[in-house]
Amino acid sequence: MAKREGQLKLGAFIYPAGHHIAAWRHPDAQADAGINFKHYVALAQAAEAAKFDLIFFADGVGTRGDNVEVLSRTAHSYVAQFEPLTLLSALSAVTDHIGLVGTASTSFNEPYHIARKFASLDHLSNGRAGWNLVTSASEFEARNFNRDSHFEHQERYERASEFAEVVTGLWDSFEDDAFPRDKESGRFFEPEKRHVLHHKGRFFQVQGPLNVARSPQGHPVIVQAGSSEAGKELAAKAGEVVFTAQQTLDEAKDFYADVKGRLAKYGRDRDDLKIMPGVFPVIGRTEAEAQAKFEELQALIHPTVGLSLISGATGGLDLSLYPLDGPIPDLPETNSSKSRQQLFIDLARRENLSIRQLYLRVAGARGHWQLVGTPEQIADQLEERFVEYGADGYNIMPPVFPTGLQDFIEGVIPELRRRGLFRSDYEGRTLRENLGLRRPANRHVQSAKAAE
Amino acid sequence: MAKREGQLKLGAFIYPAGHHIAAWRHPDAQADAGINFKHYVALAQAAEAAKFDLIFFADGVGTRGDNVEVLSRTAHSYVAQFEPLTLLSALSAVTDHIGLVGTASTSFNEPYHIARKFASLDHLSNGRAGWNLVTSASEFEARNFNRDSHFEHQERYERASEFAEVVTGLWDSFEDDAFPRDKESGRFFEPEKRHVLHHKGRFFQVQGPLNVARSPQGHPVIVQAGSSEAGKELAAKAGEVVFTAQQTLDEAKDFYADVKGRLAKYGRDRDDLKIMPGVFPVIGRTEAEAQAKFEELQALIHPTVGLSLISGATGGLDLSLYPLDGPIPDLPETNSSKSRQQLFIDLARRENLSIRQLYLRVAGARGHWQLVGTPEQIADQLEERFVEYGADGYNIMPPVFPTGLQDFIEGVIPELRRRGLFRSDYEGRTLRENLGLRRPANRHVQSAKAAE
Repeated sequence: MAKREGQLKLGAFIYPAGHHIAAWRHPDAQADAGINFKHYVALAQAAEAAKFDLIFFADGVGTRGDNVEVLSRTAHSYVAQFEPLTLLSALSAVTDHIGLVGTASTSFNEPYHIARKFASLDHLSNGRAGWNLVTSASEFEARNFNRDSHFEHQERYERASEFAEVVTGLWDSFEDDAFPRDKESGRFFEPEKRHVLHHKGRFFQVQGPLNVARSPQGHPVIVQAGSSEAGKELAAKAGEVVFTAQQTLDEAKDFYADVKGRLAKYGRDRDDLKIMPGVFPVIGRTEAEAQAKFEELQALIHPTVGLSLISGATGGLDLSLYPLDGPIPDLPETNSSKSRQQLFIDLARRENLSIRQLYLRVAGARGHWQLVGTPEQIADQLEERFVEYGADGYNIMPPVFPTGLQDFIEGVIPELRRRGLFRSDYEGRTLRENLGLRRPANRHVQSAKAAE
Repeated sequence: MAKREGQLKLGAFIYPAGHHIAAWRHPDAQADAGINFKHYVALAQAAEAAKFDLIFFADGVGTRGDNVEVLSRTAHSYVAQFEPLTLLSALSAVTDHIGLVGTASTSFNEPYHIARKFASLDHLSNGRAGWNLVTSASEFEARNFNRDSHFEHQERYERASEFAEVVTGLWDSFEDDAFPRDKESGRFFEPEKRHVLHHKGRFFQVQGPLNVARSPQGHPVIVQAGSSEAGKELAAKAGEVVFTAQQTLDEAKDFYADVKGRLAKYGRDRDDLKIMPGVFPVIGRTEAEAQAKFEELQALIHPTVGLSLISGATGGLDLSLYPLDGPIPDLPETNSSKSRQQLFIDLARRENLSIRQLYLRVAGARGHWQLVGTPEQIADQLEERFVEYGADGYNIMPPVFPTGLQDFIEGVIPELRRRGLFRSDYEGRTLRENLGLRRPANRHVQSAKAAE
């Protein structure tokens, strides 16, 4: 395969004080970040000045977890922060170019609301909206929505798939040129360019039409994050950006080839979907400085929070009763299959880790691709995975805001530019144009043409 | 009763091109207002410069009606416009003082989402959010949410009442001082200042807590608009601003006394709720100029739209088959009780109106209090209803934007100020402070004090 041409795409994944679980305790951090609008304005404008494709917000419709001793020591787990759609709408008024991607669950929402809000955001921002389509697997969210438990895996994805069909159908309610708004004749829209959906499915019955004009991007960009079999299939069917997490180059290449290979059966091209894994970069002028920065963050993890990260793998044993710097005690057998946490415990035994060392190991990785090093070292890694077809770009998850984002902007981005791997200015006007995604034709216009 | 002291409150009720049904066809109108963010920025900033308490957006979760010949000639009926929560969030970033009130239906929403989005908007705007709590009585909305018809009246209001209880309960999830965010000790919030709702009611089961910190106003201001018996009871229980419509001073005084009289049984004071009827002002330097302005708008009503306004009262007869400027033909009897439209038909017969004259009469009033005259005449009317305890303020519904709002700001507001009836600067920092509404204590803090 020839050396890959082109440039990679970048998202700035914003989480209030930072992505490290103890970020809010760091001296650089804004502890009240979750409800500090000025903080987000500064981050969004910095990311825009650096020509990031998009800013990205995760979401939870409820606090994740109910151990209040743990929760009260963390700004993570959606304890108390802005709701992303309102936040992104406000940010649309103080930015001009950067994409605005927010998460909304298909499990505890109605497709009409979601179609409408993202279409509205797309109009407000002149074509910069993106919807991160997720399913909710947390009982803590379910309990806020008239349920005792979340939908099981298969049902969740079937619901998500139908949800996406309804949303994209609603986005095509009006053709792009449906609105002459001709004051003279009194014709506001052309009746034949308005389409009623009449959706009746297993999960949803939605008549339509959407009461928002077709938006600048036609459809806001759909982001998707599932890595399960059902998740990859949904990405191939409906996703345009995939946010994912693979630790190694080989895993990344496999995932990339797998998902891209599923597109054809939905009539889609390989370029119709961009794979943008998360990257957690800790950047120093030297490798030692980067490592020291990382350890400074790790030292801020409160033991209660640290122990909670491995509590799922202890078979009910309360590790807080044992010395933190002592060995891991014998644990009861559990019936559950090997979780990621249990794999960590196996590792800990092999490496003879203390309890504290174990939770620090888990806290550090947290499933993301963690890069600790100099800008050149990090650029090497990003370049390799890009040119080897393991990624089309990355969602950058700085450990602490604002300094972690600044480090990336001042160190890594110039290095990527020197290598010709990242833009110096926006190519397009909309998020879709910058990502190199085609603007979808209205399905009703396509059918009319096919029938000619 | 002594002459009433104090000043009246003003809301700018914004509807895309204007409140007159043909507004979008007017030369002054922005025909694409519904998706033109700059248009709304200009209106919000003008209202703020004039010291309006709030801007107000109605909403429909679906287009009202399905007669496409009629819909295609109007920008009304929620055909195609921004969703209000996203729009208000964006406007929060370009305004500093004015209240931001948006409508959200209790019929086709979940209380957790609504509590969260308005709390988020309250944080984004530093205490300027208001929720206009409505029930949805349109089958066209119901059909977008898995239903064939809307909830019947009684059920709708019972659901709305429980919905409001859940929302306000969620807004008290955290006490105001729950977040020390102490980097040193690692304590982000005080566990005992977080309260789990555990709501289990007839319509909703919501565990909580809300994952947003208690907002600057404690609770965003709740606006309510029902004028039915159930609506007035809900206003007295949960409303803080009532948007209403009465044609005459006597009706207004009766409504005012009625609703204010219901507050005591909910342990509320008369000042805990502000009655702010809608006013549709057409303003000229002379009365003749004002009347000419009104007639210019009326002439823009397309006959198809005009006839649709009275179609409910014709017993199925298609009036478009008769000459517009001829008399009203004999109409078949209908079984339904006398609607407002039918009362208009009786009136038309007494006054010998043509079909066109009839629909113009209906279009003009549309249920709102219409004032056509000079700034002084309009100020006289507003003053009278205020000092006679028929209103605490008004929601101004200009016929056409932006000029109808400008006319009010340049003509009526200076006149109100000369009479000492309206502020020259904001008294407070939050919407609640400007409206003279108390900041609600957190219910958990109250209980703790009561228990002392």
